Amino acid sequence: MALALKALHTSFAVHFLAVVGAILVLIWCISFRGGLAWDSSNKNLIFNLHPVLMFIGFIIIGGEAIVSYKSLPLKKPEKKLIHLVLHAIALILGIIGIYTAFKFHNESNIANLYSLHSWLGIGVIVLYGIQWVYGFLVFFFPGGTPTIRSESLPWHVLFGTFVYILAIATAALGYLEKLTFLENSGLEKYGSEAFLVNFTAIVTVLYGTFVILTTLCQSPAEDEYSYSAI
Amino acid sequence: MALALKALHTSFAVHFLAVVGAILVLIWCISFRGGLAWDSSNKNLIFNLHPVLMFIGFIIIGGEAIVSYKSLPLKKPEKKLIHLVLHAIALILGIIGIYTAFKFHNESNIANLYSLHSWLGIGVIVLYGIQWVYGFLVFFFPGGTPTIRSESLPWHVLFGTFVYILAIATAALGYLEKLTFLENSGLEKYGSEAFLVNFTAIVTVLYGTFVILTTLCQSPAEDEYSYSAI
Repeated sequence: MALALKALHTSFAVHFLAVVGAILVLIWCISFRGGLAWDSSNKNLIFNLHPVLMFIGFIIIGGEAIVSYKSLPLKKPEKKLIHLVLHAIALILGIIGIYTAFKFHNESNIANLYSLHSWLGIGVIVLYGIQWVYGFLVFFFPGGTPTIRSESLPWHVLFGTFVYILAIATAALGYLEKLTFLENSGLEKYGSEAFLVNFTAIVTVLYGTFVILTTLCQSPAEDEYSYSAI
Repeated sequence: MALALKALHTSFAVHFLAVVGAILVLIWCISFRGGLAWDSSNKNLIFNLHPVLMFIGFIIIGGEAIVSYKSLPLKKPEKKLIHLVLHAIALILGIIGIYTAFKFHNESNIANLYSLHSWLGIGVIVLYGIQWVYGFLVFFFPGGTPTIRSESLPWHVLFGTFVYILAIATAALGYLEKLTFLENSGLEKYGSEAFLVNFTAIVTVLYGTFVILTTLCQSPAEDEYSYSAI
């Protein structure tokens, strides 16, 4: 069932929210939190890489990977290549982003893996990796039999959608967790930084919503090209 | 598109997770946090009503309302009545549950509505109310024209699914926020209560996942009764 909307049109909202969200998270981490660094005596600068890599690298690029397959007016092999390459970039940046959180914790003597954010985050990256490897093997190289492909497709879509929604929820948990730490250390609850972080979280949720909505809309390929299930 | 699974079968997982989740949240609020009270000099007992009402009252009953329409082997008018009554109960208990959070804050001189959890929570309850009223007017009484009904149906399903996923995410934010407050006040990060709360959150996410999965499965009505879109 496709909704009576064009995926190409809803994908414009996706790109717009991606730009707004990327600007907001950079303003937060650079202007409010002091900037980004891989190595520094100020360990907070190492932490700041985490939201930037997870949101811009993992959530935004991962969302664009999902949307690209549905919205681009290209032939299937080209869209498949864009889809799997963007997802690979998102996965790699997500893994580096998770590494920066451990690096910050370890260099600051903070405990690892006790919070719901960290638990779900590890779950998301593992499931995302499994989904990518399965998709690569069945739909790209060496490729499954036609039966395996057609039976796998709805589950590929469903499982990918589930993992992506879980990624958005995990991001929301991350914003709330970090802001709660900052507020417990004296940051104003109704101050400009608190509003900035909460609005960034809401833009993240809206971005995820439009990514999923786009997957339910009509692909241009259905009108213009010979299109069939993988 | 329905998955090759029976909604009646996946609904058993929904009911099972509902029972497990309800037991976990009651153990947390009663055994670990001291119990429930509408009025008390110990204001924490007023707060404890909030997770119990939101999870058992709003999330679980709301999930059962969604699942009932898809999984019960009944005729459409009976399922519709069960669907709308369960959603009404969920909405009322959700509103009371939100009131208990304000009551706790106001009696304890804690600020209201500064966190992402509270912002999304208000958004969810308002959207849930709008969805219920629209559904009642169009599908129950006085009822829209056949065209309005058939055109509204996919959006009713889509918007309801969106609001319910947002409700699950808001619940996850609530568990993390409360646990972070407790850990900042000295609760052990790897202690039994921390694990209990995180596992309750994971059961909540799994419950929501099986609720949404059930909506994508085959309704018994499609086989046994004359079934059509509303």
